[in-house]
Amino acid sequence: MSKRFQLVGIGNAMVDVLAHADDAFLAENGVEKGIMQLIDRARGVELYDRIGPAIEVSGGSAANSIAGFAHLGGVAAYVGKVKDDQLGAIFGHDLRAQGVVYEVPLARRDHPEETGRCIVLVTPEGERSMNTYLGVTEHLAPADIDEAVMEQADWILLEGYRFDGPESHEAFARAIRAIKRGGGNVALTLSDPFCVERHRGAFSDMLKNDVDLLFANRSEILAMYDLGDLDAALEAAAGEVETVVCTESEHGAHVVKGPMRWHCPAVPTKVVDATGAGDLFAGGFLWGLVEGFDLETCGIMGNIAASEVISHLGARPEADLKARFREFGLKV
Amino acid sequence: MSKRFQLVGIGNAMVDVLAHADDAFLAENGVEKGIMQLIDRARGVELYDRIGPAIEVSGGSAANSIAGFAHLGGVAAYVGKVKDDQLGAIFGHDLRAQGVVYEVPLARRDHPEETGRCIVLVTPEGERSMNTYLGVTEHLAPADIDEAVMEQADWILLEGYRFDGPESHEAFARAIRAIKRGGGNVALTLSDPFCVERHRGAFSDMLKNDVDLLFANRSEILAMYDLGDLDAALEAAAGEVETVVCTESEHGAHVVKGPMRWHCPAVPTKVVDATGAGDLFAGGFLWGLVEGFDLETCGIMGNIAASEVISHLGARPEADLKARFREFGLKV
Repeated sequence: MSKRFQLVGIGNAMVDVLAHADDAFLAENGVEKGIMQLIDRARGVELYDRIGPAIEVSGGSAANSIAGFAHLGGVAAYVGKVKDDQLGAIFGHDLRAQGVVYEVPLARRDHPEETGRCIVLVTPEGERSMNTYLGVTEHLAPADIDEAVMEQADWILLEGYRFDGPESHEAFARAIRAIKRGGGNVALTLSDPFCVERHRGAFSDMLKNDVDLLFANRSEILAMYDLGDLDAALEAAAGEVETVVCTESEHGAHVVKGPMRWHCPAVPTKVVDATGAGDLFAGGFLWGLVEGFDLETCGIMGNIAASEVISHLGARPEADLKARFREFGLKV
Repeated sequence: MSKRFQLVGIGNAMVDVLAHADDAFLAENGVEKGIMQLIDRARGVELYDRIGPAIEVSGGSAANSIAGFAHLGGVAAYVGKVKDDQLGAIFGHDLRAQGVVYEVPLARRDHPEETGRCIVLVTPEGERSMNTYLGVTEHLAPADIDEAVMEQADWILLEGYRFDGPESHEAFARAIRAIKRGGGNVALTLSDPFCVERHRGAFSDMLKNDVDLLFANRSEILAMYDLGDLDAALEAAAGEVETVVCTESEHGAHVVKGPMRWHCPAVPTKVVDATGAGDLFAGGFLWGLVEGFDLETCGIMGNIAASEVISHLGARPEADLKARFREFGLKV
């Protein structure tokens, strides 16, 4: 009997605040280029006061993956915490409008924090530098994990970023137990090299014991395995995890399963805003997987989905991804 | 002695909620294509639940004009009401980040309405259909008009839409008295043919007595003068107002001053989202005017500014408008 959900994502529920900036602005304002920095509310207010005009688009790494997966027709749910405020309403709307089941209780209006947001500064070459105020999303609790939903899922996608926060490890453990009980599979994304540094032990335990599919980019997997060499890191990861997928921006993606390895070339694209590239790669890859495509095709699907999202501002798909797949000769 | 502000805009302070839709969706949901419909909060909630994923961008007609004017380097202030909520903070940030002085007191958190928003549905050909929940912006009061600011302005730009609301006529009258006292000039935009129907009497009085520069598009000026013919309407308007500017989408703009008339051809553009075309036309035109360019050049500047904003989602400029002016050979 097929399950209720093909994929459930767990991550930080955020609204992205996207603005253009140049390298001098990043330097003057202590923003490290190309990575995600956690900031507190005061720093968020200060930085927001300094940036130029912005646009607001729902974001959150796993939420972006889930939005892409659902956009392709996948049946998905999402777990992440927002507040009963205007940004929380925007975040919830944009997932539900994509067909995603999203039923996590809102943090109440009297909660001292607000819905999380990420100030994304996009430099002229399209690189994004992220400044994240977690807000209420940091307070996702084990009680927010609906075990019945997890048991009814083929896959869950765990976002590395979500390991920050007081009860997050316990919440993830609960989700993993439930999905395994139901016979489902666990995918993990390492999210960011600094995120790997913060949670190396927890990630290492999960990779050894729980994870069936690992998503990482080059710098993340190098940070995780600390072997100084991509091939060695891929081999080490493949010794622990059934399927390992490593993206390398314009150099495409590597898919490794046991002794087998594929390279899927990237789709040449003029980068407007790299935000969401890895997230949409994962969304496209997982959709291919649950639809029964071979791993190489899944990697190609991930690359095509990523290429769409980096061609415009914002980390949610705007064009018809299935039509893009067909343009590349895929039978979908 | 030069004044403190070159331009002050008064209008409805709104955040735009932009989503793609097709004609069938508009028909099923009772959205009239190409115009602005006022909706109440309940209808706003219902419609928002039905639309697809959206992005949020600061909007408001006069605010868009002011943002464009300030983007070009003009010294400007804005008057419009938002609440002390998240969307209000976004609106204020985006104006101030453009260098606009915006000091209108926020509606308090316990106000029963929220910051206004406009659900903008963009159909595949780029036409926008607007559904406006005014919220607190409807409650701009005469006390929100800082007469000292008005007296210190070369121009004010009055947004026709802003005539909806209980105290708006009185607020506008106060602003007009103050600017005239200071020797400044009044520009009015008719905003929308249905807006003309709602406020015909007030607009007519202002055109006869107060307005120095009128902005309208073809359907608005035809609605206002009801003479069945564009030339006749332009002539009638020019009999009342010193300078009349009428835009006609891809057919360009007409500028009329007494017996003189110029036609400024539109800039060929692939329309992604027509939202803000008229607003940015006005912003570009007014900037040319305060910088001392001739009326024909002002019209060309308006057309170039409009062409930039319709080439992407959202009604605020994203590219460097002055650089665009230079590409067209203008010495700026």
